[in-house]
Amino acid sequence: MPLTVHAYAAPSATEPLQPTTIERRDVGPTEILIDIKFAGICHSDIHTARGEWGDAGWPIVVGHEIAGVVAEVGSDVSKHKVGDRVGVGCLVDSCRECDSCQRGLEQYCLNGNIGTYGGVGRDGKPTAGGYSTHIVVEEDFALRIPEGIELDEAAPLLCAGITLYSPLNHWQAGPGKKVAIIGLGGLGHMGVKIAHAMGAEVTVLSQSLKKQEDGLRLGADHYFATSDPDTFEQLAGSFDLIVNTVSANLDLDAYMSLLRVDGTLVEVGAPEHPMSVKAFSLLPGRRSLAGSSIGGIPETQEMLDFCAEHGLGAEIEVISADKVNEAWDRVVASDVRYRFVIDTATLGA
Amino acid sequence: MPLTVHAYAAPSATEPLQPTTIERRDVGPTEILIDIKFAGICHSDIHTARGEWGDAGWPIVVGHEIAGVVAEVGSDVSKHKVGDRVGVGCLVDSCRECDSCQRGLEQYCLNGNIGTYGGVGRDGKPTAGGYSTHIVVEEDFALRIPEGIELDEAAPLLCAGITLYSPLNHWQAGPGKKVAIIGLGGLGHMGVKIAHAMGAEVTVLSQSLKKQEDGLRLGADHYFATSDPDTFEQLAGSFDLIVNTVSANLDLDAYMSLLRVDGTLVEVGAPEHPMSVKAFSLLPGRRSLAGSSIGGIPETQEMLDFCAEHGLGAEIEVISADKVNEAWDRVVASDVRYRFVIDTATLGA
Repeated sequence: MPLTVHAYAAPSATEPLQPTTIERRDVGPTEILIDIKFAGICHSDIHTARGEWGDAGWPIVVGHEIAGVVAEVGSDVSKHKVGDRVGVGCLVDSCRECDSCQRGLEQYCLNGNIGTYGGVGRDGKPTAGGYSTHIVVEEDFALRIPEGIELDEAAPLLCAGITLYSPLNHWQAGPGKKVAIIGLGGLGHMGVKIAHAMGAEVTVLSQSLKKQEDGLRLGADHYFATSDPDTFEQLAGSFDLIVNTVSANLDLDAYMSLLRVDGTLVEVGAPEHPMSVKAFSLLPGRRSLAGSSIGGIPETQEMLDFCAEHGLGAEIEVISADKVNEAWDRVVASDVRYRFVIDTATLGA
Repeated sequence: MPLTVHAYAAPSATEPLQPTTIERRDVGPTEILIDIKFAGICHSDIHTARGEWGDAGWPIVVGHEIAGVVAEVGSDVSKHKVGDRVGVGCLVDSCRECDSCQRGLEQYCLNGNIGTYGGVGRDGKPTAGGYSTHIVVEEDFALRIPEGIELDEAAPLLCAGITLYSPLNHWQAGPGKKVAIIGLGGLGHMGVKIAHAMGAEVTVLSQSLKKQEDGLRLGADHYFATSDPDTFEQLAGSFDLIVNTVSANLDLDAYMSLLRVDGTLVEVGAPEHPMSVKAFSLLPGRRSLAGSSIGGIPETQEMLDFCAEHGLGAEIEVISADKVNEAWDRVVASDVRYRFVIDTATLGA
């Protein structure tokens, strides 16, 4: 018998989220049922539900920053047991056979992975995300949340955390490396924490100095305002790695000039318009402009273990479900320090 | 006493090259005098002399693909002796102190290296390039041309060869790697030869199939016409590395789609307009768009040794000096297979 559970759904691109119920399928042999405790609010949820990335297949239940407790396990499940603290991120399945999946890079699955929401599951039904009290997922796509991170602070790690950890890890942020994070928001604040914990020298590049105190508290060594043209002169040729968390079309040539020889600027968000960059921003220092998208399952587990070891969680504001529409508007206005997390116990209230 | 030598110079941006004489300085303690035998014609020579890259400081003697024989050595010279076969590429000096120079990346010298032409030497005088019978250079910036490469076929290696060798080497073209070269011209044909010799599987991406037979003869495993839209479908997600030798604004998103996960497209030429690329061409496969500029001195020597070991030289058409203006027009019209080389013995004729 499918389980009927409380959720919040977007009925259309233009209507506010509303309380509803959805059905979760029976737990298959390799699946687990998770009692969701907290769901982070990611800007992607809003883009998707509001139709900014195309037809979302309304009504849609979004949310891909999920933290909870295992409530039931299938007959063949070996990785998790009832009562375990687990998380689910942006993916609930992939082909598991292609070169990327074999390498643990399920985010780059060549046959198309299955998104936690807005996708179509192996059962042929639309997937529904974390703004709900329960979810059924393949055990391989559930991550252990180690002791040492509270579940509410862990939820945003499943998207914001891994989105920053993966490029910092891949491009080897660490001792002796100078790393800049563009933007101190939901993504950027995790980038600062993680890059600092990895041992890199961390600089925040933010439009203004408004959040400077926060940035330094979170682990940044330096904080510069990009509205000040002196910043670009002063920091020319400084960084091994710049991670851009701002989903707007920046003057990339100006930012590329801040890279050292062999430096890389990594985009983790998708600006609306094509990016423009001059060849002479790349050639003279063998510089690269790259992109990175979340992380694979093994790397996401590695990230959670790393965060637990270093005592890192997201900076959050926990809200009840009835505040979710207001929270979305505040996310759009960048008025959040630094991630809203829904207490899912309030979804059926 | 400075040496007065024959040369060909561009009197202005709009006039044809003309025979002239220039003075070469006395050989300093760490310098050598080279009796230039051959000078390759690079498209950069034309861009520079015609003012397409700004004020060239006319009259200017261009040429940075120089092969010759040592005619005289300074008192402290230890690397070269009279009679040695040597080459000079795009650089005749650098600061030698910065991080890049310390790492043998003189092409990325942080204090500004000195170009073989169009620069200002340590003596405060404008540098003059290889369209001349002699040149005086610091011994550290002269390369050994090993036996096994004829001097005429070696000349273009000093720019075209290293411009391709460096990215192929840096991004590890080799066995098991699929490499595409965009454009089969002076640069591209060396890319095919070198990538093939490195053991990579090589594909040429050319506008048409006109030069297919040549491409396969030079070492390509596959040859595709980019004017055929099927090419992009058929090769989607294929390449670890694409080197773009075409200095025109291509549809980069289409080419990025040909990269595998973690693949890199490297620009070695500079298109006139800023390049445009969508974030969704980079993020989904952690792809990179990079640039690379010639190579450092140690890597240029490594390239020459590699070419000698593998019997690689440029495919050339040797011309006398009186044909140089005609040759330039043919380079601009892409009517050369694959590099013109001036027999400098004819410069004073």
